[in-house]
Amino acid sequence: MHEQPFFRSLMDVDLVKSSARDSDILFAARVSTMGELSVQQYSKIGNLEDKDKGLINYLMRDRHGSPFEHTSMTFFVSAPIFVFREFMRHRIASYNEESGRYRELRPVFYIPDDKRDLIQSGSPGSYTFSQGSDEQHTLLTESIKESSIMAYQKYCDMLDAGIAREVARMVLPLNTYSSMYVTMNARALMNFLSLRTKNPAAKNPSYPQREIEMVAEQMEKIFAELMPVTFLAFNYNGRVAP
Amino acid sequence: MHEQPFFRSLMDVDLVKSSARDSDILFAARVSTMGELSVQQYSKIGNLEDKDKGLINYLMRDRHGSPFEHTSMTFFVSAPIFVFREFMRHRIASYNEESGRYRELRPVFYIPDDKRDLIQSGSPGSYTFSQGSDEQHTLLTESIKESSIMAYQKYCDMLDAGIAREVARMVLPLNTYSSMYVTMNARALMNFLSLRTKNPAAKNPSYPQREIEMVAEQMEKIFAELMPVTFLAFNYNGRVAP
Amino acid sequence: MHEQPFFRSLMDVDLVKSSARDSDILFAARVSTMGELSVQQYSKIGNLEDKDKGLINYLMRDRHGSPFEHTSMTFFVSAPIFVFREFMRHRIASYNEESGRYRELRPVFYIPDDKRDLIQSGSPGSYTFSQGSDEQHTLLTESIKESSIMAYQKYCDMLDAGIAREVARMVLPLNTYSSMYVTMNARALMNFLSLRTKNPAAKNPSYPQREIEMVAEQMEKIFAELMPVTFLAFNYNGRVAP
Amino acid sequence: MHEQPFFRSLMDVDLVKSSARDSDILFAARVSTMGELSVQQYSKIGNLEDKDKGLINYLMRDRHGSPFEHTSMTFFVSAPIFVFREFMRHRIASYNEESGRYRELRPVFYIPDDKRDLIQSGSPGSYTFSQGSDEQHTLLTESIKESSIMAYQKYCDMLDAGIAREVARMVLPLNTYSSMYVTMNARALMNFLSLRTKNPAAKNPSYPQREIEMVAEQMEKIFAELMPVTFLAFNYNGRVAP
Repeated sequence: MHEQPFFRSLMDVDLVKSSARDSDILFAARVSTMGELSVQQYSKIGNLEDKDKGLINYLMRDRHGSPFEHTSMTFFVSAPIFVFREFMRHRIASYNEESGRYRELRPVFYIPDDKRDLIQSGSPGSYTFSQGSDEQHTLLTESIKESSIMAYQKYCDMLDAGIAREVARMVLPLNTYSSMYVTMNARALMNFLSLRTKNPAAKNPSYPQREIEMVAEQMEKIFAELMPVTFLAFNYNGRVAP
Repeated sequence: MHEQPFFRSLMDVDLVKSSARDSDILFAARVSTMGELSVQQYSKIGNLEDKDKGLINYLMRDRHGSPFEHTSMTFFVSAPIFVFREFMRHRIASYNEESGRYRELRPVFYIPDDKRDLIQSGSPGSYTFSQGSDEQHTLLTESIKESSIMAYQKYCDMLDAGIAREVARMVLPLNTYSSMYVTMNARALMNFLSLRTKNPAAKNPSYPQREIEMVAEQMEKIFAELMPVTFLAFNYNGRVAP
Repeated sequence: MHEQPFFRSLMDVDLVKSSARDSDILFAARVSTMGELSVQQYSKIGNLEDKDKGLINYLMRDRHGSPFEHTSMTFFVSAPIFVFREFMRHRIASYNEESGRYRELRPVFYIPDDKRDLIQSGSPGSYTFSQGSDEQHTLLTESIKESSIMAYQKYCDMLDAGIAREVARMVLPLNTYSSMYVTMNARALMNFLSLRTKNPAAKNPSYPQREIEMVAEQMEKIFAELMPVTFLAFNYNGRVAP
Repeated sequence: MHEQPFFRSLMDVDLVKSSARDSDILFAARVSTMGELSVQQYSKIGNLEDKDKGLINYLMRDRHGSPFEHTSMTFFVSAPIFVFREFMRHRIASYNEESGRYRELRPVFYIPDDKRDLIQSGSPGSYTFSQGSDEQHTLLTESIKESSIMAYQKYCDMLDAGIAREVARMVLPLNTYSSMYVTMNARALMNFLSLRTKNPAAKNPSYPQREIEMVAEQMEKIFAELMPVTFLAFNYNGRVAP
C-alpha cells in the first residue's frame, strides 16, 4: 500500500523556465547613461560586442548590482530536507516546496556515495574534509538505511492508524528527499553560488556542506549556459556577487 | 546646443519582457500536494481548466502568496521624478533609472492636462478631489511652464560654465521626466496595484496620487493581458495582494 | 558520554531584547505631516493620548504599514526542526540557528501532549482537527519515542566512529529540538501572527500547524505587552498586517 | 503668510534610538556553536574580551553576515530630495518621509558651500572631482538661489489660489530639503556605508555623490560609537559588508 523505501545519492536540478540573457544586463545598465533606449532598440540587441562584455565586467567589478536583477530563473530541485534547510536561508528568492501537511511523503532517502569525504578536521568556518575508511562508509550506509527504514515504518503505521500527516511526518529523518520550485534573479543566484560552492577562483573562501554544493553546481552549470558573459565576469572578479 | 523644453501630460509604460503566465501559478502551487510534477508535465500545461481557475482563486482568497512569485515582468517607464519617488518606496522590485550624474538630462516636463482634478478636500489619507476652475488651470499651466523653463535655463548655464552634471541638476524640478526599468513578480505587482490605484472593486480604499495611478493603470492593463485568470481572481477577492 | 534522550511537549520563547513601543509608530507616522518633529520632542512622547491611539488605528486600517517598521524585537526560540522549517519561510526577519555542522546536537525531541488533536479532516488549506483516541495517542507516543531513540543511537554511533557531525546528523528526525535567535519588526511580526495563529478575530482564516502556533502564541503575548495599542488595533482590524 | 526661503549647506543626522551593541553580534553568532546560551547568560555579556573581538573579526572576514542583523538603529535625517532619491534605493531599510501631499513643504534649499568640488572629469563610475573657480561658485550660488526662490514663489501662488498641495509641489526643485526616519540593522548599514562613502580603507572603490556621503559620514560616526568593535572589523576587512 505504501511505497518501498528507496535510496539515492544524487540531487536533481532542472531549469523550468527563465528570462535571463546577458543582454538583459545591458539594457538595464545603459538606462543610466542613455535613458531613451526604446523597447524597439532593446529587441535588436543580439550578439554581444566587445564593449558590451566590457560593460558587464565593469559592473561586476565595481559592484553595480542592480542591472543583474532584471532576470529570472526558475529551478525544480529535489534534495534532502537538510539541504533545503540551508537553501531557504537565502531570502532574496521565491520558494514553493512540497508539503508534508498536504500529502503523504514518499520514502526516498539520501545516502552519501563512497566518494563523500567523512572525516572533518579544523575549526568552525574552515573545516577540511578527508576520505573515510571502508569501515566508516559501511557504518554510515547501514546506519542511514536502518534508521530511514525504521522511521518510515513508524510513519506508515501512524498514517494507517488514522493519525494526521502533519503529525506523523515528524519522525521522518533529515535525509528524506523533498522537492521545490525556486525562482531567483542572477544577482541573488551569484550570491548563492559564492556561498554554496567552494571554487579556486573565489576571492573569499566558502565552506559549504558538500550536499548543497552538489545542488549549487548544477544550478551554476545552467546559469553559465544562460548567461555566459555574466558568468565569466563573475569568475573573473573573484566570484563575489556584485 | 541644448534641447528646447518640452511639455507632456502622459506617462509611458512598455512591457520589455516577461515570464508570467497563469499556468506558472499552478505548477508552483501543486508542488505542495503533488511534488513529483516533472518539467515535462509542466510544459504540457496549456489552457487552464476550471479546476485550475478554482485553484488560483483559492490561493488568492486564502493568502497563499508564494506561488504568485515565480513570475517576472520588466517594464520601461517614463514619468516625472515625483512619481518615481513614490514608486521606489516599493522594495520588492528591481530598479534601474537614468542618472543625472552620468548624463545630461533632457528637458521634458510634466504638466497636468485639463482633466486633472485640482481641488483637494478631506483629511490626510482620504482626500477627495474635484475639478479646478479655468483660472486655476491657467495658473497651474503657466506656473509650471515658467518655472520649468527657468530652471532648465539655469541648468544649461551651469553645464555650459563647466559645472558638474550632478551638481547642476539640483535646480531641476520634480516634474522633470525620468525613465527606468522596473522588474516585479506578480505578487509584488498586485501589492503595488492595490496601493496605487483607486478601484471600486477594492476592499481597502487607497488614495494614490493621480499621476502614479496613471502609471499603475497601464501596468495593470499589461498584467491583465499576461495573466487574465490571476487578474480576475485579484479583482474578485477585493484587490488585496495575497 | 553522550546525553540521554529527553522528550518535551513545549516550545520556549524568550524576549532577548527589544526596541519596540507604541510611541515608535507615532513619530514615524507624524513625519509625513509634521516633518520638523525633533529628537527632543520625540523623547517627550510618553503616555499615549486618545488621538495617538486613533492615529495607530487609522494606520492599521488603511494599510499604512511603514510606520510599524521602526521597531525591533529579538526572540530566542526553542522548537522542533519542523517548526523552524515553516518559520524560516518568513523572509522579512533575521535568523541565527544552532548548527549541526558546528556542534553535536542534543537529544531533545518533541512529542505532542495528549491535548494535541490527531485526526485531520477537510481539504488542503482548510483542515479541521479533532481529538484522537487513546490508542492513537499511545501509538503516537511510542512511535516517536522509539524512532527518536533509535535515530539518536545511530547518530552517536557514527560520531563515535569519527564520522563528521554534518554527515551523521542526517539521520536525526524532524522532531529534534533546535534553537535560534530571530529578530523582526512589528509589521513583519503581525504578518507572521496573521498566518501562524488561528484566531476568531481574524478576517482571513488561517490554518497553521498547531506546533508553530504554540510558538506564535508566545510571541504574540510578548508583543501585546510591548505594544498594547498596536496590538489592540491589529485585533480590531481583523488581524491583517498593515 | 508663507515662510521666507532659507538656504543651507549642511545635512542633519540624529540618532533617534538604537538597539545595537557589539555584544549583540556575539550571542547571535554563538547560537551556532553553543545553542543553549540562555537569556540570563546573554545579559551578563558586558565588556568584550579578546576572543569576542576575534570572533567579530572572523565573522566579518568570512562573510557570516546574519549575526550582524540582530541590531537596529533609527536615524532622523534632513537632506535635499536628490539625496533621498539615492538613499531610498537601499531596500533593506525602513523609511518614513515627510509628505508633500499631506503638508505644505518648508522653503529650505540646499546650496553647496565653497568647499564643494565642481569640476567633474573621468568616465562614468570613476569620476574625479576638482575645485571650481570663483566664477563657477558664484554662478552656482546665484543660479540655485534664483531658481529656488522663483520655484517657491510659484508653489505659494498655486497654494494661495487653492490648488492642491500634491499638484503645486511639482515645481519645487531637487535641492529642496526633506526629512525622514530611517531604520537599518548593522549589516544593511555597512552595505550602505561601503557604497556611499569614499574611504582609503575600502577594498572596492566607490564614487558616491558628495552630498549623500555627507549624510553617510554622520551615520558612520554614530555607528562607530555604538558598535566600536564591529566598526573596527569593518574597516580592517576592507569595508565590505559581510
